[in-house]
Amino acid sequence: MEQLQRLIGHVIDRANLHLKEPFTDVGPYVRELIPLPSFTRQGAVYAFTGHHPARYVIRESNAAGSYFLGQCVVERSVLFQTDVRGDELKCKGDTVSCSGMKVPVQDHEVIHVRNSYLVNTLVHSNCHDPGSPEVFDIRDTIAMHYANIHGSPIRGSYLGPFATVDLTSVQDSVVGTFSYVQAGELYRERVEDGCVWVRAKDKFECRYTFDRDVLERYVRFKPGGEPGGIIGDFVAQRKSDIDARFDMAEGHPDVPVPERPSVSRFAVVKGNARIGSDVLVAQRAYVEDTVMGDGSNAQENCILVGANLEGRDVTAHGGKIVFARLGKNVFVGFNSFLRGSSDHPLTIGEHSIVMPHTIADLDEAVDIPPRHLVYGYIRNRADLAANTVSLDDLSRCDGELKRGNLVFRGKGAAFVHGFEHRIEHILEANGALFASGHGMGHAQKNANISHSVVRHITEGALQGLHPAMELQA
Amino acid sequence: MEQLQRLIGHVIDRANLHLKEPFTDVGPYVRELIPLPSFTRQGAVYAFTGHHPARYVIRESNAAGSYFLGQCVVERSVLFQTDVRGDELKCKGDTVSCSGMKVPVQDHEVIHVRNSYLVNTLVHSNCHDPGSPEVFDIRDTIAMHYANIHGSPIRGSYLGPFATVDLTSVQDSVVGTFSYVQAGELYRERVEDGCVWVRAKDKFECRYTFDRDVLERYVRFKPGGEPGGIIGDFVAQRKSDIDARFDMAEGHPDVPVPERPSVSRFAVVKGNARIGSDVLVAQRAYVEDTVMGDGSNAQENCILVGANLEGRDVTAHGGKIVFARLGKNVFVGFNSFLRGSSDHPLTIGEHSIVMPHTIADLDEAVDIPPRHLVYGYIRNRADLAANTVSLDDLSRCDGELKRGNLVFRGKGAAFVHGFEHRIEHILEANGALFASGHGMGHAQKNANISHSVVRHITEGALQGLHPAMELQA
Repeated sequence: MEQLQRLIGHVIDRANLHLKEPFTDVGPYVRELIPLPSFTRQGAVYAFTGHHPARYVIRESNAAGSYFLGQCVVERSVLFQTDVRGDELKCKGDTVSCSGMKVPVQDHEVIHVRNSYLVNTLVHSNCHDPGSPEVFDIRDTIAMHYANIHGSPIRGSYLGPFATVDLTSVQDSVVGTFSYVQAGELYRERVEDGCVWVRAKDKFECRYTFDRDVLERYVRFKPGGEPGGIIGDFVAQRKSDIDARFDMAEGHPDVPVPERPSVSRFAVVKGNARIGSDVLVAQRAYVEDTVMGDGSNAQENCILVGANLEGRDVTAHGGKIVFARLGKNVFVGFNSFLRGSSDHPLTIGEHSIVMPHTIADLDEAVDIPPRHLVYGYIRNRADLAANTVSLDDLSRCDGELKRGNLVFRGKGAAFVHGFEHRIEHILEANGALFASGHGMGHAQKNANISHSVVRHITEGALQGLHPAMELQA
Repeated sequence: MEQLQRLIGHVIDRANLHLKEPFTDVGPYVRELIPLPSFTRQGAVYAFTGHHPARYVIRESNAAGSYFLGQCVVERSVLFQTDVRGDELKCKGDTVSCSGMKVPVQDHEVIHVRNSYLVNTLVHSNCHDPGSPEVFDIRDTIAMHYANIHGSPIRGSYLGPFATVDLTSVQDSVVGTFSYVQAGELYRERVEDGCVWVRAKDKFECRYTFDRDVLERYVRFKPGGEPGGIIGDFVAQRKSDIDARFDMAEGHPDVPVPERPSVSRFAVVKGNARIGSDVLVAQRAYVEDTVMGDGSNAQENCILVGANLEGRDVTAHGGKIVFARLGKNVFVGFNSFLRGSSDHPLTIGEHSIVMPHTIADLDEAVDIPPRHLVYGYIRNRADLAANTVSLDDLSRCDGELKRGNLVFRGKGAAFVHGFEHRIEHILEANGALFASGHGMGHAQKNANISHSVVRHITEGALQGLHPAMELQA
């Protein structure tokens, strides 16, 4: 495994070249993180459909248990159990808009990962930076467990566990544990742990920060280890079922075939689960004893247990919903953790929006009314009062609004309108609206998906590496 | 599947460009042979070990259910459930000998398949032609079910079902159903059906031809169909078990893991089977209720049922052994069909040699003595008398020897010595002699083999094709 160890040293060096005091060495986070034999246990999965240009290039890298769809180049990187989903990349002939100009895209967009170490990470969407229409670049970067890199080119940066960067260019920055950033760009910034931050230049800024003790209870993390705490443990308990799906790809015992073609064979669907039409269940989603109404979805790393989604509900990457009943068109943001129980159920009214990285872990039954925004940390009805605002009230805001730990500044109408517009786009992209005459989305385009599995080299000088590969349809 | 149909037309055209009256069109043999959906059912398997240079390139081709080990380039070809085993290719720095000269090999040898259609075919060994040390070329060629292309570069030719070309350069030729040729070279020749022909220029020539009615009974074949008859049916009855191993590669139910690392996970081992040490069971071998003594082997397409191999027995590619007991160091040649029964067992004494393409299908118990050569068609002890010669008697021959349908001309000693030398080489290459201090062979080198599975494209313009690929360790 000498080459593999050298590779890990290389990505540490490359990230460190960018970082500044006091955070200057990512080595302790990743050097011994994964036991070496785990790097050859699972292969890399490459998906092909007739609907997405597909080209996969990988060199001097490891991609154990990782999943690729779309165009992707990986060089001198470690992608451990990571999803690179390129089904929303721009195509040749599309246009990007910037300052009123429309510029044509010259080639099919490609996700290019270099000198990086991503563990249990999700990469999705396309490069939001109009300056780079054809390349969604991830370079010299470390992303820890269950980080989301969503439409965000990123260079020389560190993302903590459960961190999300969303539609943001990130350079030479550190984004802390369980932090969410949608800020257009970050340059040489350090985003503290547990910070949820949405900024649209000249329009609004919205920020919530978790209390340190709450964060410590839900996402405990020490360099070199796996994330623990209530959320970390909750995810870890279900990980072996997900792992089995990837082991299965290599000939191990199967579990029953999902009911719908749009349920990935790399997802877990178990117990008394009902899957409606135009539902998307992505690879590495976990669905148990759950009703997924028509047009609802569960993205990568989502966990749905004892949940009831009435229909057209969006569960963004990493969202977790336990003993909850969602009305129609509810949006649950990235990495949220919503946990009711049979004694203390959670209900969410239709068209409500759960902010990314919200924790609702109930001690009593809580009922979120329709068309409300919820955020922060909620255990009971009193917490809810401090952590919710109706979309109508928020739309009327033009200035500052403070509720609990949330500070909103700017035009509420722009925030609400932007969010609703984005949810509509997500529903359409997922194929949730196919029955009502919209075009095909992911749920339909993946119906005839095929998967190839490439194993890592198990002995010799290149042991632990993925074979050098170019694969194209 | 338009591209795939175009590809099939292309390989038909390319073969036809070489062929002469009266055999001028291979179209009826392959055009409708495989139902189109079968071309996307199984993926292609690529093996990696730390002991063989590995580079796989495939373009504009289909390789459904095929297995590759070593260096191989496939272009504009159809390889259906075909094995391309490059574990005996020459390496850079090896030398080839010719007319007393030793010439160094400049690059790792590669098997290069172009414009060809191979179905259930085995390709193995390395290019015997000293004029092409680095390329084992298979071009503009059609090979039907269970043909063996062993060390034989081949161009513009047709091989019938169960035909074997062994250490022979074949050009613009036709080799009939169940024919075996080891003749150095064939140029614009037509080898009739059921002909077993060994020729070493200036040394000896050995020829046996099956009676037409025997051949018709054992290998019945019509253009466009699968081979039938007793051997064809025998193989077909066990094919679904083999297919299941390749389906399994894509996540279908598994069968128990073989007992030894040198038993391929793409072999079938079932019933009361005992596998000794340093045994090689290659992919697509079928072993049932059989004892395989130390250092014995079963190559691709071998079927062993109720057999007892005492040790260091070689079953060459496609050999079938049913209710037979083999002493030590017995050699069973390519595609032989040896079938005793519990009432009429077959025993073969040590160091005996069963010629390639021998049929022994017993009506009474038959006991082949040690150090004998057997050939042809044997049903009882009377047949045996006409179809056997002791190696000592044969060694003394210098001139002509006729027995039954066999005609041998030349120096018997050269024939026997050459055969024994080759068997020793095969044992060593297989790793059968590892326990007695020889180097590693296939049985040992494959202990940590890993397999990648690449699926064919299931929809869109390229449906039915393998993704364009380059894969290298």
